[in-house]
Formats: sequence, structure tokens, C-alpha cells
Amino acid sequence: MSLKKFFEPESIAVVGASKTPGKVGNTVVKNLKETFNGEIFPVNPKHDDINGLKCYSSVNEINKVPDNVVIAVPAKIANKVVEQCVGIGVPTITMLTSGYEEIGEEGEELHEELEKTIKDSETRMIGPNCLGIWVGDSGVDSMFLPGYKMNSPLKGNIALISQSGAVGSAVIDKASSIGVGISKFVSYGNQIDVSETDLLEFLEKDEKTDAVAVYMEGVKNGRKFLEKVKNISKKMPVIVLKSGKTDKGSKAAESHTGSLAGNYKVYRGAFKQAGVVEAECNKELLDYSKTLSKSKKPEGNRVAIVTNGGGFGVLSTDTIEKTELEIAELSDETVKELEKNMKDYGNVSNPLDLIGDAKPQEYRQAMETFVNADEVDMLLCISLVQTEQMDTTFIDVLEDIKHNSDKPVVGSILGGDYSKLHRDYLEKNGVPMFEYPEKAVEALEKLHNYYKWREERS
Amino acid sequence: MSLKKFFEPESIAVVGASKTPGKVGNTVVKNLKETFNGEIFPVNPKHDDINGLKCYSSVNEINKVPDNVVIAVPAKIANKVVEQCVGIGVPTITMLTSGYEEIGEEGEELHEELEKTIKDSETRMIGPNCLGIWVGDSGVDSMFLPGYKMNSPLKGNIALISQSGAVGSAVIDKASSIGVGISKFVSYGNQIDVSETDLLEFLEKDEKTDAVAVYMEGVKNGRKFLEKVKNISKKMPVIVLKSGKTDKGSKAAESHTGSLAGNYKVYRGAFKQAGVVEAECNKELLDYSKTLSKSKKPEGNRVAIVTNGGGFGVLSTDTIEKTELEIAELSDETVKELEKNMKDYGNVSNPLDLIGDAKPQEYRQAMETFVNADEVDMLLCISLVQTEQMDTTFIDVLEDIKHNSDKPVVGSILGGDYSKLHRDYLEKNGVPMFEYPEKAVEALEKLHNYYKWREERS
Repeated sequence: MSLKKFFEPESIAVVGASKTPGKVGNTVVKNLKETFNGEIFPVNPKHDDINGLKCYSSVNEINKVPDNVVIAVPAKIANKVVEQCVGIGVPTITMLTSGYEEIGEEGEELHEELEKTIKDSETRMIGPNCLGIWVGDSGVDSMFLPGYKMNSPLKGNIALISQSGAVGSAVIDKASSIGVGISKFVSYGNQIDVSETDLLEFLEKDEKTDAVAVYMEGVKNGRKFLEKVKNISKKMPVIVLKSGKTDKGSKAAESHTGSLAGNYKVYRGAFKQAGVVEAECNKELLDYSKTLSKSKKPEGNRVAIVTNGGGFGVLSTDTIEKTELEIAELSDETVKELEKNMKDYGNVSNPLDLIGDAKPQEYRQAMETFVNADEVDMLLCISLVQTEQMDTTFIDVLEDIKHNSDKPVVGSILGGDYSKLHRDYLEKNGVPMFEYPEKAVEALEKLHNYYKWREERS
Repeated sequence: MSLKKFFEPESIAVVGASKTPGKVGNTVVKNLKETFNGEIFPVNPKHDDINGLKCYSSVNEINKVPDNVVIAVPAKIANKVVEQCVGIGVPTITMLTSGYEEIGEEGEELHEELEKTIKDSETRMIGPNCLGIWVGDSGVDSMFLPGYKMNSPLKGNIALISQSGAVGSAVIDKASSIGVGISKFVSYGNQIDVSETDLLEFLEKDEKTDAVAVYMEGVKNGRKFLEKVKNISKKMPVIVLKSGKTDKGSKAAESHTGSLAGNYKVYRGAFKQAGVVEAECNKELLDYSKTLSKSKKPEGNRVAIVTNGGGFGVLSTDTIEKTELEIAELSDETVKELEKNMKDYGNVSNPLDLIGDAKPQEYRQAMETFVNADEVDMLLCISLVQTEQMDTTFIDVLEDIKHNSDKPVVGSILGGDYSKLHRDYLEKNGVPMFEYPEKAVEALEKLHNYYKWREERS
């Protein structure tokens, strides 16, 4: 059965709804009330109403079958609730409850019982032992982290699915604090029913999603997952951070999600074959996701760099030389064009150093020349916005160039709060932004390699 | 002659002081007035006063010899001013003016002239083509970036010296926005007189400095520099980011600071010999500097990890396995001690996963056990502070453990604005803090390797 009702339900019941601040069932109802436009049915036999909403003693009491039931009661009771849900034909359950296979022997019996109930039914389940779902458009939010401690996720075009709830939620919290938006977030936990592969299959057809980011420890069915990824990668990038790569890491993963992390060397090769963009840490997961979801296909590997701080040009050149990218060799025509607008005391070269007194208008002229030059495939714009001459029109300049060019354009601005305002605004408005230029180069390499893979497969 | 009067002058003259907002000479006077307690002498023949200060027509007119003269007039005039300064016996000049060897042929003549004037004198010069100096204690601030675009640098124990003014200023701007403090910042530019080695020699004896961070493209006298670094490294860590490592990067460096970047392979080996802690980018420069300046010597390479998000434990374990560090194997005694405070549904292991409902008090118990365990040399504390249970007492807990332990303790908190508040506060209060746990592990490895080098040399 389709997963659609997890993401676009018309009604959601919350079993374990609570009046006690801090309880999972309290936070979920509070969060839903704030963002979800459909019907909300708190379920708790002890109360008549919760948070101004009529409260039901069980899912059976609700006058309709909810499209989605969020379960946040202890495992033993949770299994009974699932039976009730299956009984009345609930299409989707988001199972926050933990205490199953991840806690070892004691949880295994409950796990088997739950698995049987679900497998014999039409009901689909995400979880157990998960942190819920967040969907920008429909306002579904079953995450149980308090709103005041998390930046509200921003709507965007990256879907993030995470085996670990803690890792996933920290990543979207970070993402939204730097202007990176999310289409959907799923913490999929023990994947007793819905697996990472099922989620990918759903996201493949999701119009709101242009890239999928995955944090995983173990894969449920490696072969199926890789086949699916290979298919999707032909349409949109899938960026994966796989942990449990080392023996001890794998052991830690087993005690965390109860999943076998598998032999990483095998994964590594298979990921490459399947077009997966691999990230080595969550910073890279974010960096690559934002760059690949927002960038057009580069026609080659030649990068032009413009900066007002020569040192940044040197640093990025070093990084480019370590990757499969190249510093674009400027044609005579391009050099002539750049010289027209260059100050007497400046040198035309790539990286192009506009020097510390550069104005946004000089950036515009240089970048226009670069994006129109045949020998340039990608553009990295680095700016020390802290100088007197860099007024805020720089933001419009970079935004313009990015959106009116067929070539990938990324930006790098390093500094404190003032520079962060620039970065975040530009990121929100579709320009992949970085603090450190080296990281921008690394993301451009991934972008280039991804499209190279696609080209070889088409 | 000593460099002391650059950093602790009783009076500073600013040649090229200006009434026009945005001009270098305007920003420097404004910044000095705000922070410097000594006498300030603006120099500009066109004005009688600037910013409420009596303005002089030349340095000769001032009724005393200033300890430091900041020069911000065009190169041709600047050379004359330097002659005047030398004539009256000014001990130190901070030369912001650019347009010397870094612009090629035209600048070379002026460079030679300037060099001759300085070499024949008792006057010391930092620059030209530099961004000035910032000193926390004395309030010296000859940087010409406007205050409203930069986070005010925080006072701390790291000295940063940078060949590139743009890179250096962006780094301290970033540093202060994340709670990392600076003892002194010097943008040393073309080093016509004072070299990176001279600065190291001065910083070696500086009581306010516990670590030196260096951004360099080329080295003026490689052998002398390495000898000096080797000496200092026996007392305090020197963290170096050397750019211009590749052929093209080196070419870019030449057109930037006019300096020869040299053969990096030779540097790499020599750096290692000299105990240099090498950083590959400015993020690492900051990460390693803050960790090494704030941490005690680890007795070995065994790390204990405590977390409330299992995924973070898996990720850090993977990283540890890639480094020279090891996951500490817990003794039976330690396991028993940890079990006393563990919930029924938790497992004692390393990484220790306190699970999503962990309270700060559980962190305290676990960390106390770890820092007292013989088999643990370093501690990494990872926290998803966004959970309901993690109240702000966590901050006191981590601070306490760090400051009352003889072992290095670092923290990792990933997320948005709320988590940043925790990170920055802890960083300001002496705990090296990271967003991504992988980066914390990498910094611990550098810490371990640095002290290993020191031990082998002692």
C-alpha cells in the first residue's frame, strides 16, 4: 500500500497524548496543533480533552478511521494499540515507541509480535524506535522535540531520511539555522515494515523533492536498496552517510539500532556503481545535498574563482588541484574582457583577485564574463563581505548571476554574525553557500562526479 | 629591537587619518578611540581635528615620539612618511599601505626604497600590505574593517598571525562568533622587516598566549622559521595552515603576496620534524587551535565517548578507528560503576549511549566515572541538547567535568540556534566545543600527536 497517507493525511490520531509538558505525547499534539491543518484526535483514556482538543479513550472511539496514527505509549501497550488500529483499518502508523529489538533479548519477543501483526495487515508502519516525520507542505509533524529548542524546519527541496532520530533531527535543526530547506524528514528507526528502500521509492515520485539525503547504519536489504538507488540516481542525486564502517563502529551500530552494518568495503564499491554521492560526515551530507539539489548540470570540470581576498583564492586552488576538478585556463578573449573592468593595480588571472577594495559591481562584471566564457564550467564566488566597499548589493549580484546562468554557481563567505546574514539569506534564496572555500570546491567535485556518472549511464 | 611597542604602545599616531567614513584612516581612528587607552595622534595636514582628537600635519609636529605609527597613505607618500618616522626615532611602524612588490614591477622600486630606509634604521616595521594588529589587553586595533561588520574579537589565549589580511580577519571574525578568544592578531603582509619568525620569537615569551595559529603562503627564511617553531613547540603548540601547496596554488600565492610558496613536500616533512600541528583548512586551524590551547596533556590515546544519541556514538567510533586514537576498553570496575546508574533498558559500553531520555545528572555520573578510570585518557561528550530532558544544567555539568579533570575533555553539540547557545557558552568558558563529533575526534588526535612529539623530544 502507498505511503502517501504518512505524508498527506487528512487526520492524525495521537495515542499516548498527554497533558504533562515534556511527555512525548504532549509535544506531538502541541507541534501538530501548530502546523497541521487536518483533524487531530488525541487518544488517552484518562482525559476528556487535551490542549483544547476532544480526547478519545481509544482509537476505536474515534468517529472515523484516522489516516495516520502516531503511537507514543510503552511497547507492551503499543502492540495492543497496533492490533486495534489494524482492526479498524488504519492505513498508516508512525510508531515512536522504543523498547524493541534495539534493547536486546527482552525486546525481541515484542518485536516479533509486532512484526506479525503488521505483516498480516494492510497497515503500513514507520518505526518503531523512531523520532517521527516532518512534512513541509502538509504540516505533519510527529517529532517529539520541543519547538523552542529546535529551529523550525524550512520548506525546501531536500528529503532527509535517517535511521537515527537524534542524528536526523540535529541535522535538520542545523540545516534550518543556515537556510537549508527540507521537503520531508523521516526518522525510520527499526524499519519493521517501511524500509529505507520503500521511502526512496516514494520519494522518487515526490514532486517536492530534488535530492534525497540518507543517514544509515545498517541496510535492511542491501541488494534491493542499491537497485533502487541506482534507478533514482538517474533522476536525482541520493547522498548517503553510512556509519558503522569500521569493526568497532559496526559493533556500536548493532547496540544502537540493532542493525548489522555489514562490510563497508562492499558497500563502498556498490555505492559508487549505483551513483550514490557518499558523505563522510553530517557536514558533508548537508554540503553535498544543498549543492546538488540547487545546481544545474556542469558541462565539464573547469572552475573559475573570483575573490576579494587573494589568500582564499590560493586555498581554493590548492583544493581544486587535489580533486578531479581543474582551474579553468582563461582564453585570450576572456582575459581581454576582464581587463576592461580591472583596476590598474590588479592582475587578471584565475583565481581572479579583485583585491580588498572591490565593489559588488566589480564582482558582477567579472562573474558575467566567467559564466559566459566557454572555458568555464562552474563558478566559485568568494567574498570577504566585511570590507567597507562590500555593501549589501553584493547579495543581489550573486543571486542574479546564479539564477540567470546555466552553470553551477556557489558562494563562500567566512566570518561572524554579519557574514552569516549574507550566507543564510543567499542559501535560502537558492545559492549554495559555504563558510570555507575548500568545502565549496569539494561540493562542486561531487556535483561534477554525479553528473558524470549519470552521463555514462544514459 | 623588541617588538613590544607594536603590542603595548603608550601612544599611536595614524598617518592618513580621515574624516571620511569608509576610508582606512577613518576606520582605524574610530576603532582605536573605542578600545585603546593610550594617546592617539591623527595625522593629516588637511584637518585640525578628527573625531574629536587634535590632528597633526605631520609626525614631526607631534610633541612626542609615538611608540607606534600606523601608516595608511598611498605608497609613494608612505615611503616619505617612513623616512620622517625613522628621522624622529619612531620605534615601530604598522604599514597598512599596499602597492609594493605584490603588484609586480611598478611596486618593486618602492619596495626597495622602503626596505633600504628600514634596514638602515632602528625602526621595526610590520607590513606593508597588511591589515594591522589587534591586541586584547592593550586595546591596540589598527585593523581597518568596520566594527559593525565584524564580531568584536574576544580576549583569549590564541595568537593568530596571518600573511593574508583577508583570511586572518575572516578567521578571527568567525572565531569570536563561536566563543573562541584571541590574545593577539597580526596580519604581517609582505614582511619587509618583521617576519613570521620574529613574531613567533616574540610570542614565545608572551604570557597571554598558549598556542600560536599561523596562516602562511610563503616563508621568508624557511630554515630559521623551522628552527624557531621547533623550539616553541616544546613549550606550546604552533598550528600552521600553509597554502600554495600545489603548483597552481603556489602560482596563485605568488600573484597574491608576491611570495614563493616553495616545495610543499619539503615543508610537510620539516613541519612534522618541528612539531608543527598542520591544518588543512581554516576550519581545522580554528578547531586545532582551540583544542590545543585549552587542553591538558593526554596520557595516552584511549578515548571514552558519552552520548544521548547512539548514531553520534557510531560516527565518532568510525572516526576514531581511522586515527591513531583508540576506543578505550572499559575495565570490569568501570563497567560495574557505570551500571550502578544505568537505566534497565540501557547497555554499558563505549561509546556509552545514555539514550534519548538522558538527564544532565546521568551525564555527570558517567563522565565522573570515565575521567577517574585508568583506561581512559580523553573524553568526548556528545549531546543532543534539544531533548526535553536536557535542561541547561548540562552546561554546568560539562564545565565542571572539564575543569576538574586532569584529562582532556571536549564536547560536541549539533543543531541550530538553541544548540549554538550551549556550544558558544561552553567554548567561552574553556571547553573546546564542536558541532560534528567527527571533528572533535580529529582535534583530539592532533592533541595526542602533539604531546607525543613533545615527549619524544624531552
